[in-house]
Amino acid sequence: MTDSLGAPNDASFLADWATHSAFGAVPNTNGVDRQAGSAADGAQRKWFEQLLTSRGFTVLRDEIGNQFGLLELVPGAPYVLTGSHMDSQPTAGRFDGAYGVMASAYACFRAADALRADPAAARYNLAVVNWFNEEGSRFKPSMMGSSVFTGKLPLATALATPDPQGATVAEALSAIDELGAGPVFGSGTDRRVASYAEIHVQQGRSMEEDGVTIGLVNATWAAHKFEFRVSGEQAHSGAALMADRRDALLGAARLVVAARELVDEFETGQLHTACGELNVYPNSPVVVASEVQLLLDLRSPSSEVIRAAHASLMATVERVQREDRVTIEIVAEHAWDQNPYQEEGVELARAVAEELGLTHDRVMTVAGHDSTNMKDQVPTVMLFVPSVAGVSHNLEEFTRDDDLLAGIAHLSGVVAQLASGALTAE
Amino acid sequence: MTDSLGAPNDASFLADWATHSAFGAVPNTNGVDRQAGSAADGAQRKWFEQLLTSRGFTVLRDEIGNQFGLLELVPGAPYVLTGSHMDSQPTAGRFDGAYGVMASAYACFRAADALRADPAAARYNLAVVNWFNEEGSRFKPSMMGSSVFTGKLPLATALATPDPQGATVAEALSAIDELGAGPVFGSGTDRRVASYAEIHVQQGRSMEEDGVTIGLVNATWAAHKFEFRVSGEQAHSGAALMADRRDALLGAARLVVAARELVDEFETGQLHTACGELNVYPNSPVVVASEVQLLLDLRSPSSEVIRAAHASLMATVERVQREDRVTIEIVAEHAWDQNPYQEEGVELARAVAEELGLTHDRVMTVAGHDSTNMKDQVPTVMLFVPSVAGVSHNLEEFTRDDDLLAGIAHLSGVVAQLASGALTAE
Repeated sequence: MTDSLGAPNDASFLADWATHSAFGAVPNTNGVDRQAGSAADGAQRKWFEQLLTSRGFTVLRDEIGNQFGLLELVPGAPYVLTGSHMDSQPTAGRFDGAYGVMASAYACFRAADALRADPAAARYNLAVVNWFNEEGSRFKPSMMGSSVFTGKLPLATALATPDPQGATVAEALSAIDELGAGPVFGSGTDRRVASYAEIHVQQGRSMEEDGVTIGLVNATWAAHKFEFRVSGEQAHSGAALMADRRDALLGAARLVVAARELVDEFETGQLHTACGELNVYPNSPVVVASEVQLLLDLRSPSSEVIRAAHASLMATVERVQREDRVTIEIVAEHAWDQNPYQEEGVELARAVAEELGLTHDRVMTVAGHDSTNMKDQVPTVMLFVPSVAGVSHNLEEFTRDDDLLAGIAHLSGVVAQLASGALTAE
Repeated sequence: MTDSLGAPNDASFLADWATHSAFGAVPNTNGVDRQAGSAADGAQRKWFEQLLTSRGFTVLRDEIGNQFGLLELVPGAPYVLTGSHMDSQPTAGRFDGAYGVMASAYACFRAADALRADPAAARYNLAVVNWFNEEGSRFKPSMMGSSVFTGKLPLATALATPDPQGATVAEALSAIDELGAGPVFGSGTDRRVASYAEIHVQQGRSMEEDGVTIGLVNATWAAHKFEFRVSGEQAHSGAALMADRRDALLGAARLVVAARELVDEFETGQLHTACGELNVYPNSPVVVASEVQLLLDLRSPSSEVIRAAHASLMATVERVQREDRVTIEIVAEHAWDQNPYQEEGVELARAVAEELGLTHDRVMTVAGHDSTNMKDQVPTVMLFVPSVAGVSHNLEEFTRDDDLLAGIAHLSGVVAQLASGALTAE
């Protein structure tokens, strides 16, 4: 063992990582299909439980299926929690989320070694978390497990949420035996979270291009997300006169195109827009659609850009309603300004990177993470490692082994610091 | 009984029509949901079988679930076949197809009375048909039953066709006990079809506007139908740089918009375009779509317009592929020129309308009908009655009782003429 925060576990991490990536692997690709509450998710959780218990952790799951591995170093003390999510999009890379959970486990293994070697430094206990349903592809909304954990989403609402086939979260979690009886932390328990750390692959390519190994995440982009319902009128798609039609799919298509064209109204990189989900009713070859539901997102590093883009989009909505004779309703919307992480956490992560000689830079995250929920409750550190070409939500997502291992070394240092009381001095 | 081709059965038709419209009725609307092979389709078929047998018909179904009611007046002679389809779109009007089957039954009842009263006039037997799956919403393609019947679609292909949930045609027909063991007409049987007649509500509003009660259908519009597959690349819908994206849904949306704009390149009424079905993969809130499948139709009374519109659409396909960095493949396409009905059938229908004092005019059909298949095999007559405001494939589709009854009187006359040898003199 060369150094308690160094490389001793690197080989075993890479071996475990290879095993781990086989759960839900999509044949003949490098990626996975491991949606929340699926059989593959269940199998992976059982394997992960064995890994943690073999290292002396106690594994518990809470009433929304968050999986926790607990290691008590200081009897009765609060916990440093670190983790991410093992669920994936339907056809996705093997790193997104899963790397963060595995890195957290290994960071705890190393931090525990360091703290056992220096018991006086240990102020908190350690816990790894595998949050339930961060992706939100099978069950909406995303970040479900951490949202329930932080009180932002009612438990009953989450448990009753159906997937497209009608199976609820409660049913899916029961089917894989991962529905706990109650909370593991907080009210009704004798456990409390002192601080939180998370590491994730960057879902972008700036760090790779800039030669940065550790991303110190200092803020989330501003965003405005919409669920639109476009309503028209069913008609025979051949026989109805064009002038008589009120085509919901045409209206929806105009919004999809308008969202892309909106980007060109701003400087390059200042606005990202997307529509990833769109459902047509009745979706029949010879019927003009009467209703289309679609999700449309605006994202920007600048809250001002979001507001200007929002105004432009609403003008398009008015024009499409008028010209295509459809009704466009906003069924739901959710907006947030640029959302900072605590500066103290960014500075702690910077200091650890300096000490380890790892290149680092501040980066913003475009995507949301479970840490977005946790940082509103406890001191939080959010870290990135690079992703080749920024490929994300894609079977070919890839991060080099060197970067995976550097991230673990860094997170180990952060967790050890947090467990010694950094960020939580009272 | 006032007249064998007249009004004696009108009251019983209207009563039976009301009963019939309750099968698959959508609560609190005037419409139905009675997709092919559904429980409602099965229940309606059992009821229709009882109606036919109570009038002395023998009911048989063939190996693709076409339901036939046979009435032998001239032992061993070929049959005049008349009918349409009882299946519907997912939320549809109660007249589309179903009126044609019920009108055919009542037309046969009346024609049989007339022929029994004048046995020397009877040259052929009578048969009513309820074609399986004309709509093609649950199982593709449309006009499945008549396509198999006329040898245009292999039986095995049709039986193995899955619905979106994976149930095949064979399984759906077996589940409602409507899968026959073999053919009812043609090879392997001792029955032959001499001629065919069909009546349908117009899926347009020209007859209502022109005050025409009987439409003498003389041709089907030209059409070019496409199934496109737009391929891009999965990416994180927030984080991926806009310039890096290859968004399949954006490409598909541009095609939907282009199809509508194409209409404006031609004179009003010369081109109808539509996209009724569009499916997104992976259809997840935070994933740029990698694949979209969509159906796009061009229809025109003019084959020249179709060819010009096709060329313009292909230019758009090239532009979208280049500008949006997606691949657009034509998975399937099917084109036909303006397709005439036999002039002798149109003239027969005109003469019957004259005799009955019903207003009439030649009309083209934009939509396909089972008669489109049958007219390639035997002398065929295709008729329309008006539809209020041309509302079609819509819960609020409506045709007035007077027009329903006038259509039956007219079809009764046509069927009696056909059974006496009109159009089939050898």
